[in-house]
Amino acid sequence: MSNLKQRALDYHAYPTPGKIAVEITTKAETSDDLSLAYSPGVAEPCREIAEDQENVYKYTGKGNSVAVISNGSAVLGLGNLGPMASKPVMEGKALLFKRFANIDSFDIEVTHDTCDEFINTVASIADTFGGINLEDIKAPDCFVIEKALQERCNIPIFHDDQHGTAIVTAAALLNALDIQDKDITHADIVCLGAGAAAIACMELLIQCGAKREKIYMLDTKGVVHTRRTDLNEYKTLFANNTDKRTLDDAIEEADVFIGVSGPNLLSAEQLSKMAERPIVFACSNPDPEIKPELAHSVRNDLIMATGRSDYPNQVNNVLCFPFIFRGALDVRACKINNEMKLAAVDAIRTLAKEPVPQSVLQASGESALSFSRDYIIPRPMDPRLCNRVAKAVAQAAVDTGVAALPMPDHYV
Amino acid sequence: MSNLKQRALDYHAYPTPGKIAVEITTKAETSDDLSLAYSPGVAEPCREIAEDQENVYKYTGKGNSVAVISNGSAVLGLGNLGPMASKPVMEGKALLFKRFANIDSFDIEVTHDTCDEFINTVASIADTFGGINLEDIKAPDCFVIEKALQERCNIPIFHDDQHGTAIVTAAALLNALDIQDKDITHADIVCLGAGAAAIACMELLIQCGAKREKIYMLDTKGVVHTRRTDLNEYKTLFANNTDKRTLDDAIEEADVFIGVSGPNLLSAEQLSKMAERPIVFACSNPDPEIKPELAHSVRNDLIMATGRSDYPNQVNNVLCFPFIFRGALDVRACKINNEMKLAAVDAIRTLAKEPVPQSVLQASGESALSFSRDYIIPRPMDPRLCNRVAKAVAQAAVDTGVAALPMPDHYV
Repeated sequence: MSNLKQRALDYHAYPTPGKIAVEITTKAETSDDLSLAYSPGVAEPCREIAEDQENVYKYTGKGNSVAVISNGSAVLGLGNLGPMASKPVMEGKALLFKRFANIDSFDIEVTHDTCDEFINTVASIADTFGGINLEDIKAPDCFVIEKALQERCNIPIFHDDQHGTAIVTAAALLNALDIQDKDITHADIVCLGAGAAAIACMELLIQCGAKREKIYMLDTKGVVHTRRTDLNEYKTLFANNTDKRTLDDAIEEADVFIGVSGPNLLSAEQLSKMAERPIVFACSNPDPEIKPELAHSVRNDLIMATGRSDYPNQVNNVLCFPFIFRGALDVRACKINNEMKLAAVDAIRTLAKEPVPQSVLQASGESALSFSRDYIIPRPMDPRLCNRVAKAVAQAAVDTGVAALPMPDHYV
Repeated sequence: MSNLKQRALDYHAYPTPGKIAVEITTKAETSDDLSLAYSPGVAEPCREIAEDQENVYKYTGKGNSVAVISNGSAVLGLGNLGPMASKPVMEGKALLFKRFANIDSFDIEVTHDTCDEFINTVASIADTFGGINLEDIKAPDCFVIEKALQERCNIPIFHDDQHGTAIVTAAALLNALDIQDKDITHADIVCLGAGAAAIACMELLIQCGAKREKIYMLDTKGVVHTRRTDLNEYKTLFANNTDKRTLDDAIEEADVFIGVSGPNLLSAEQLSKMAERPIVFACSNPDPEIKPELAHSVRNDLIMATGRSDYPNQVNNVLCFPFIFRGALDVRACKINNEMKLAAVDAIRTLAKEPVPQSVLQASGESALSFSRDYIIPRPMDPRLCNRVAKAVAQAAVDTGVAALPMPDHYV
């Protein structure tokens, strides 16, 4: 781990601090070039946009840009580190947008006192971008913020910690249930964590068939149940009419454990009490709720996933967010709606069932991969993801009438 | 001109809309790379920054980044076109930051109702960047905005339309006065325009030796004089105790005309009334106050400059803003103070008096250039500018105690 630490720090410090930079996409060498890029030539696209605002998509980078915006109030699983300490994550997200979907993305860290200040700030700068990826904002603020911004802006606003996590989790879980021969409508699901990701995951799983009454959500005070009086409006939606109070109670005979909480919160003993052929998604970042080595030593009928790239079955938002924005930008969708999210779930889970190309194996250093307990979702390096997911999302946007453009030729 | 128009529009539309993109500065190919760039490795720089905020300069791109921020209220010389129509200019500025000083810059367009909203928005996102270049904000809002942001932020805040214009104008004018054998302390100066650039130019010229009582500033109502009751606090500083009322009155026997107003506002007849060996800076963008062809046909003892790259003596802010920020970022200055501005003036004007390298001649397609009426300031393509101006600015920052770092080795 100390090796990883030093390598990670070096990776961020060299060759230059950070991970992303700006590049020029036009020719900017001669005086003539400059007379087009800046005065006097630049006045022409300005005039065209002043006449018709839609021309901003023709003459500027707006249509291919996504801002990654955070206040650093819930950085990874590390808590409220503040805006500055969140910057490596936000730059990392921008890197992933570029790497996987050729979207020009940069980060904005917002310092603020109230939710309203955050909302006003982001709404004021939103026109700059083609879309906004909200990131690492603590619950319940993130619900208020996302809703308000969705109402005020006419570009996609997407809190990836909620919806990106939910989409990839749903895709992986549906596939894991297939392999374990379980039906989502009958599955008892324990959700450890009641923050943004937890609530979004459970909402999406319900749309995929899970039963609300078979979900046991736990916050730091235990099971979220109907007799509790300390629940916010978001947790209340998952208040279960049950006598279960602790994780020990809830985990008994559970089919599915989804951890979006903190490190080492699921013990070997608790895992041993789960139903046969259990599914454990220990998604806390960077340290999972239970270490895969330990989990597999306890249960050999297990399907396990984590949030980490150094174990199999990484529930990694990068399987979704670059491509859901790629699809949304390609048809200039004004929002990312439920149909688009479900289209992404379906595209991701379908791809995992197909043969894996050699290039993906090489990138991940493996000799073979096929749909199985250790391969329930595609690898981030899978070059098929972009076209598959983006196309499905774009088609859903067109079909539901939120797209300003038709399906582009390259998807057909 | 229609040829320029189409070429400028094509330049902005192809190969992709806009002029800048994001590039990845690290290796992001394998799963291992991603485990460093994002989870789990990215947690390490986050923790380091949470422990010591200064580490944000070590592990992120903050220290080499400048945001170009506008509300589009005074776009070029075209007026209040709004945020969206200003975007090509802002992206152009970002391109120039990268091209000339290797600064990673991107644009933010702010939609707002009041100055306070603009200020709050920019202050909330300021920590993201190493510096902020304000751009194309109308007077007098820009004065209020810049002052407030300088007080609230601990990074350089620089309204280029004011100070960049002033620095390059001062450098060029001091050199023009040398060639015309005139002394700035005795020069009668007509300033057509009383906006942000005009006021900043005149303030800086006074610091360079010009006499306030020999400056005749004109707004749309004529000469700014002491009997006017309609002046804002910024124009009042230039109210002249004079009987001159119109440009016709003021231009009579003037040594210097500085236009920061609009197209074709200086007539041939007015130019003919100026003192011998006059200096005319017709800096309105994109169309100057008097066309150079016309001006030279009226006066053969003239030194003329414009804001355009397709005429000699372009008073082009690009001679300053990339390098003043380069110098400020290199020593991590918390502001850009007067000493730093004067150091930039001196570095720019000194360079114009030196022999011009072949590479500069090639880029501008000329066979020879030497200090003369048609070459009073360096060309934007001059590769010596970055080191000269940035070094002088950095040294001034260190000398005046606003720098957090010592002079970097590469300047020594």
